[in-house]
Formats: sequence, structure tokens, C-alpha cells
Amino acid sequence: MQFANQSISSLVLIAFFSFLFVPGLKAGTLNSEEKTSPRPNFIIIFADDLGYGDLGIFGHPTIKTPNLDKMAVEGQKWTNFYVAASVCTPSRAGLLTGRLPVRSGMCSDKRRVLFPDSNGGLPQSELTIARLLKNNGYQTAAIGKWHLGHQSPYLPTDHGFDSYFGIPYSNDMDRVERTDYFTLAETERYQAYNVPLMRDEEIIERPTDQRTLTKRYTEETVTAIKKMKGAPFFIYLAHNLPHIPLFRAEEFKDTSLAGIYGDVIEEIDWSVGQILAALKEEGLDENTLVVFTSDNGPWHTYKTHGGTAGLLRGAKGGTFEGGMREPTIFSWPGKLQSGVVMEMGTTMDLLPTFCKLSGTKLPTDRIYDGYDISPLLFGTGEGERDVVFYYRGQKVYAIRKGNYKAHFITQNEYGSQTAHPITNPPTAPTKTPTIHEIPLLYNVNIDPSEKYNIAENHPEIIADIQKTLKDHLSGVEQVENQLEK
Amino acid sequence: MQFANQSISSLVLIAFFSFLFVPGLKAGTLNSEEKTSPRPNFIIIFADDLGYGDLGIFGHPTIKTPNLDKMAVEGQKWTNFYVAASVCTPSRAGLLTGRLPVRSGMCSDKRRVLFPDSNGGLPQSELTIARLLKNNGYQTAAIGKWHLGHQSPYLPTDHGFDSYFGIPYSNDMDRVERTDYFTLAETERYQAYNVPLMRDEEIIERPTDQRTLTKRYTEETVTAIKKMKGAPFFIYLAHNLPHIPLFRAEEFKDTSLAGIYGDVIEEIDWSVGQILAALKEEGLDENTLVVFTSDNGPWHTYKTHGGTAGLLRGAKGGTFEGGMREPTIFSWPGKLQSGVVMEMGTTMDLLPTFCKLSGTKLPTDRIYDGYDISPLLFGTGEGERDVVFYYRGQKVYAIRKGNYKAHFITQNEYGSQTAHPITNPPTAPTKTPTIHEIPLLYNVNIDPSEKYNIAENHPEIIADIQKTLKDHLSGVEQVENQLEK
Repeated sequence: MQFANQSISSLVLIAFFSFLFVPGLKAGTLNSEEKTSPRPNFIIIFADDLGYGDLGIFGHPTIKTPNLDKMAVEGQKWTNFYVAASVCTPSRAGLLTGRLPVRSGMCSDKRRVLFPDSNGGLPQSELTIARLLKNNGYQTAAIGKWHLGHQSPYLPTDHGFDSYFGIPYSNDMDRVERTDYFTLAETERYQAYNVPLMRDEEIIERPTDQRTLTKRYTEETVTAIKKMKGAPFFIYLAHNLPHIPLFRAEEFKDTSLAGIYGDVIEEIDWSVGQILAALKEEGLDENTLVVFTSDNGPWHTYKTHGGTAGLLRGAKGGTFEGGMREPTIFSWPGKLQSGVVMEMGTTMDLLPTFCKLSGTKLPTDRIYDGYDISPLLFGTGEGERDVVFYYRGQKVYAIRKGNYKAHFITQNEYGSQTAHPITNPPTAPTKTPTIHEIPLLYNVNIDPSEKYNIAENHPEIIADIQKTLKDHLSGVEQVENQLEK
Repeated sequence: MQFANQSISSLVLIAFFSFLFVPGLKAGTLNSEEKTSPRPNFIIIFADDLGYGDLGIFGHPTIKTPNLDKMAVEGQKWTNFYVAASVCTPSRAGLLTGRLPVRSGMCSDKRRVLFPDSNGGLPQSELTIARLLKNNGYQTAAIGKWHLGHQSPYLPTDHGFDSYFGIPYSNDMDRVERTDYFTLAETERYQAYNVPLMRDEEIIERPTDQRTLTKRYTEETVTAIKKMKGAPFFIYLAHNLPHIPLFRAEEFKDTSLAGIYGDVIEEIDWSVGQILAALKEEGLDENTLVVFTSDNGPWHTYKTHGGTAGLLRGAKGGTFEGGMREPTIFSWPGKLQSGVVMEMGTTMDLLPTFCKLSGTKLPTDRIYDGYDISPLLFGTGEGERDVVFYYRGQKVYAIRKGNYKAHFITQNEYGSQTAHPITNPPTAPTKTPTIHEIPLLYNVNIDPSEKYNIAENHPEIIADIQKTLKDHLSGVEQVENQLEK
């Protein structure tokens, strides 16, 4: 997707600046600038339970996301970008470590995420993006939802972040009132969830006034940018929304055509606009790679308070595409090759990519499941990734290899039993796992909705993917499970 | 959706041209140009069976549509734009007359479209966009699929078009070989369909070599632009694709990640690029309103040779959103207010809008179902439309009023019985009409997938929509049926 207006603006701007400055150019200025090009800043903006189809640029008809749309048009829109798991905790572990959560003990068949009564968390043996960058001189800040352990030594500040501001687990936890969820939402009863708000290791507010969280995260991020602008930084901004319960600031109340869910997304879009504007204002935009994505697909249990995976099948909790493919946007003005990227990528690719771009050595004592995607960002080469693993808990349910995806096991997502009386009747998907002796096979580039099983015609592809599964499993070691602690 | 790069390029270009030309400007030039601003040209590019989710900018992950994406970003992307019917013939009648097909006898409960053995067509008493504009001095050309009657006096040249080049009905008609459709498609057996290609009233090729049609339509359109550039013109380019059978030019064969369906859409996207480039080259771009849309939703019967309605429920032939909401883009460089338009619009609005913009008097002797949408195009006002009628054959199956849509009758679309073994099981939708004593009610802005029936909570909205139905039906007169002739 090359936009002529962008080409025009770049060309004209180049011509314009050449005209202005070339005659008076001091010899050596440009060369010196080229040589001392500072190491880039990184910002990850991570939504929670956002569906593939929830942004305008990804096809939503009534959720207005002008800032994300613009970011995608000027930067890169990734249409085959995956997460490491279809629920919160393991997905976040995958992103921050560059490794499948099964390697860190951060996924479980018994407890799918960490809960307030959990005693585990991301082990100290894991090296997060923050830790690696900090060791290489970066400033680091975590803002928003953590959900990788709320006790020491599992907190953000235990994992390479200089500072933390946010809630340590999901915003629907510590529920202290049994009233029906939709009634609580309608009355904005944030007190029904006794969620703590933390600064670094201290609880500073409880229950958190969730109505203003997106706004406060945004202010914290803008402040962090201003504070850290003198040297390279990494900011991990993990919104706790649109995960239920849905809250939004007064200014966004009942403003979206798409109801409260739309309000919430439109406030996050506003937040993205504020952050990009702050970067520009501080002259940092052309030296900052910003990534926007989410931890997993929409939560269908909550009907109109959950999002949509668009044309993708499935949702949060499951291993159909809708559970694990996320609307992803990269921005880095003047550096990225603008357009739509259809190659596969995952959140686990961010760690090796950031290492590459910052000149940070990737540790060699462990297996990484991510690849450096900088050639795709700059348009200088092809992606290395050919395989995506779809874990549910500790089991591989499906594998995508190239265009093809084989489902070895399928199982109902949260809420898909009841979500659609006609197209998702109670009898169709199964609550317990169904093991397919002959895996289901889909060409997900031709058939992104996973409608037409072509297993019968392609035994050789299934055999190849089964071999990939076997090879993969032989490289996964048993580790202590953190979610069952 | 305001894109900064667009603003930049416009500003810089204005500055650039001001700098170049202002000093030597001849007094009066600009004023004279302003005063004699010529009447705009109009081009409608109409696809066939294109789904709401089939373009990149409307959320398709693997169909590349850079030209349409750019057109949408620089122009207007309409996300609530409807057609007059969910099948070919009545949809086209609605577009060209600005009236519901029931008013012209161009829809039927017995034969849903015109067939090669049909003797009827759009009656001479109907006034097409072409007729009205021609009477007001416009040059007019129809290129592509007609499907409003293939005998005199129903041909394009009988209805106000100066010229015609294309096929008079669907590309799957006159089938002379009984081989399985997919085998025919794989072997590119265009001879299996004895479809005629016409120039004006003459058949010039039979069977039509369908492999080169998109390319030939494009060349005809570019030639027409060049020929007619001296005075205002209207071109109606109705692609017969992606309606099956799918064919594409050699250059587009196996080039899309999304398979043959992707190849076909990508060739149409290329065609749009050629047409916009020709307008620019001839200096006509800033005086030409271009509209891109389609006649109805995707044909699910044909599986991966049919498209996707994205997050919308339903498909071609039905009255859920996927059958009648289409991906619609308006372009008019320098004139339109760029952005996403979420107000309702329909193809029937084009006639009154073109009349308004060209200074053509709208006839007062008949009922029009369209509204002038120019205030929405220019961002100068709100839309007048508050209601959309969803006809199937001669019956109103559903009505949308504001955010709410009531289904009085539901019925299976073509192919939805078999399309999805899990989410569309054979037992769920009905092949025969189901009349709902209490209509199904959806808020389609909050719930675009029509998942959550809220009829129980809103009897007053249902009552209001039922009154709208009654009022509407009392204004529809019986006319001779053209499809049953």
C-alpha cells in the first residue's frame, strides 16, 4: 500500500528542505549526524482483549480510530501478526521474553492466568525486553496492566523496569460485589472490583478508580517520554482495556456509535494520538519505533461489551485465528517502509528486533521463539518466520506453516457457546477438547475464516506439519509451573 | 480521519504552486476559473458480488488493494452504504433509477434476476441517471455488465447511454457445458459459458473471452475518458466480476496470497488505479466524482471463489447486513471532506446527488427513494436518510431505522446452508421464509454482526418500525413485473 500523497509529501519535503538548507550546509554536518544516529526508543502499546476487527483500518464500521488509522497508513499495518497465547498472562510472558510461555512455566492447563491468590510469576531466570535493554543503557518504564506476578520478585521493577504505574492483574479481579456484570457496568460501579493501583512496589489506590485509568496511563506515558527524552528509552504501555469491566473518562461517555465498547476503543485511540503527538513535539518521532497490538482476541462471553474478530473465526481463549491474530501497527516516521505487511509476525519477534535495532546482544544460553523482523520493517528483506504455534494452556492445539494451518485439537472459546444463537448453536463447538485424528487443515491466506477444511486433499502438508510439531515438542523442556503455585 | 501526510502534501503543494505561479498570475485568471467551474463528471465503478470485507481498507488480511485503499484514505470510506437489493438485476435497477426496484417491476419472488430467456427489462417509463444527465447535455457511456434487459428497448442505448460495451447479463449464464464449476474454473474454460459481448446493440464476440474482460473494460473506460474530456460526462463501469466464473488476465494469475478470488479483486483494484491515473493525466481528477461499490454481498455457495462480508452476518441473496451493505468509496480530489462516513447511504442516493451536482432537475412525477448526499460528501451538513428497506424479491424482509434494524422475515442466503459446517450448520437458517411474529431487533451500529436480538427490551422501537413499514407499503403501487415476462 503506497500512498501517493505520502510519496508526494516526502518528495516535496525533501525538495523543500534541500532548497532551504543545501546552499548553507556546513561541510560534515550530515555525515556527522549519520555517524552518531542515536539508538532508537521503543514504545509498545498493548491493548487487552482487542479483536482483530475492532479498529477502523481493520474493518470496523462504527468504531472511530483516526489516530490508529493514520498510524497504519503512514507506517505499517500487519495483517498476519500473532500473540503467544489466547489469554492474558501467557501472552504477556511471550511478548516480554521473546519465548513461548511454555518455556517460562507461564501457562497451565489448570489455571489459564494468574489470579490474586496466585503465588507465582515470571521467574527471575527470564530476561525481559526491559532487562536486556536496561543492561545496555536504556531507561525503562512499565505503565498499565502487568499480570506476570503481583508479588516480589515478579513485579515490573524486578524485571528490568526502572518504574511502574498500573494494576498488577486484570481489572475484573478482586470482585467484591456479586451484582450482575452489566448492571455494575451501567452504574459505573468500579468499587465492585477491589483492584489495587501500584506505583513501583507500592499500592497507592484501592479500589482503583478505573474510570480514569486510560487517561492516567496516557499522562504517565507522556510524562515518561518528556523525562527520558535525553537518552534511549523503552516504554511498555499495557492498557487494561477493552478487557471487561468497561470504563471510560467522562469525555468519551456515550460518544461512539458503537456503544460503550466503542467509547473505550476511541479513548485508547485518543491516547495513541496523544503519545504520537508528544513524540513529535519532543522531536523524538523519527527516532522512536512504536508498536500497537493486543494480548489476545475479543471476549465473546460479554457480548456487546466484547469486541469482534472481524472476518476471523474464534475469539479469546481459543486457537482459531480470532483468538490469536491481532490488529497490529508499527510506526516510525521516515524509517519504515509504509504499507500493508502480510508476512507472519508475532509479539515474540519484538525482543530480537529491539535487540538488533539497539545493538543489544541476544543471549545465547536459551531458545528464542522470535525472529528479528527489521528487514520487513525497512523493506530490505523477507521475514524468517514460517511457523506459528497455537498453544492452549500447555498443549499445542494448532500449527500454521506458511499458508496452511492444521488443528490437532479444537475446543470452544469462552462464550462462543452462547454468543450467537444461530451461527454458534450450543451443539456445535465442544466445551471439552476434541482431538482430531486427521487434523483440520485450512489455507488461512485464502480462507482466513477457517471455513473450508482441505485436509482430505493434502495429506502431505499434514504430514509435514506433524513433523514440525514433533520437532518442536522435542525442544521444549519441562519447567516449574508458575500459574499453579 | 484526517491524515497528516495529506495535510502536509496539500499545504506544501499549495505553497509550492503559489510560489511558482503567483508572481506571474494574470489578473482575473483565478476569478474567471472560479466563476465558470465546469459541471462535474461522474464515474460509477460497480463490482459484482463483492463482499463488505473484500478490500484491504475494509479489513481483508490478504487481498491487496492499494489503489482502493488510497482512494478511500484520500477520499471518503463509507461504512454504512447499502444497495437496493441483494441480487444483481434489482440492485442495478435501483442504482440507475434512484428508486426501489419494486417501483419499476424489476424484482420478483419467482425469478430473482433476468435470465437469457427473459423477455422483460427496465421499462422505458423509468428515467436512468444516464437519461437525466444526457437530457442535460452530458455525454454518457455504459461499460460492463448490464443485466437490465438484453433485448430492445431495454439495452443501455435505449436508456440514455450514448454507447455500450459489455455483456448483457451475468457471466455464468448461457452455460453450455455441464462439467463441475470448479473444474471449469481451474481449466479456464470460458467457452463453457456462451455469453455474448456487445458493442452498442450488436453482438461482437460469442462466447466472450472472459479472461480479458476486466482489462478490456478498463481500456474502454480510459478511451472514453479521453474521448469525452471536452465536455461533462457520465461513465457507468459495471465489472461482471468477482461474480463466478472467476477469470483474470495472465498478469494477475496466481499473484494474490488470497487465491484466484484475490487475483480477481487485485485486477479490479489495478483497473481503478488506471482510471484514476487517466483522470489525473487528463487534468480531470479535480472535476470528477468517482464512486466505487458493488451490487450485493458475496456468494457463499462458491466457497473460496466467493468473497467475505467481513464481520457482517449474511451474504448475497439475503437481508442480513452482509447481503446488502457494500464497501463503498467516493473520490473527488480537492472537493470531498476526507474521512470515514458512518451515516447511511444507498446506491439510490447517487441519482439525486448527481442531479444536484450537475444542476439537473429531478423529475417530480415519481417517487424517489434516494436522497442528495452532497452535504455529506462536502462535510457541509448531515444526511437526510434515516431508513433503509431490505427487500427480498417483492417483499420487505427488514427495515433499518437509525441504529435499529427489525427483521420481519428471515430466510437463508444462497449457500449459507453449506458454507460453514460448524458456525452455519444445516439445521440453523431456513430455506423457506420464517415470519417473525415479534421481529428480530438489532442495534447494527453496536452489533454489526446481528448477534444479539434486543426485541424484548424495545417494543416501542419495533412498533415505530412497523409503522414505517405500513407507511412505506401504502406508497408502493403495483406495476407490471418485468422479471416474470
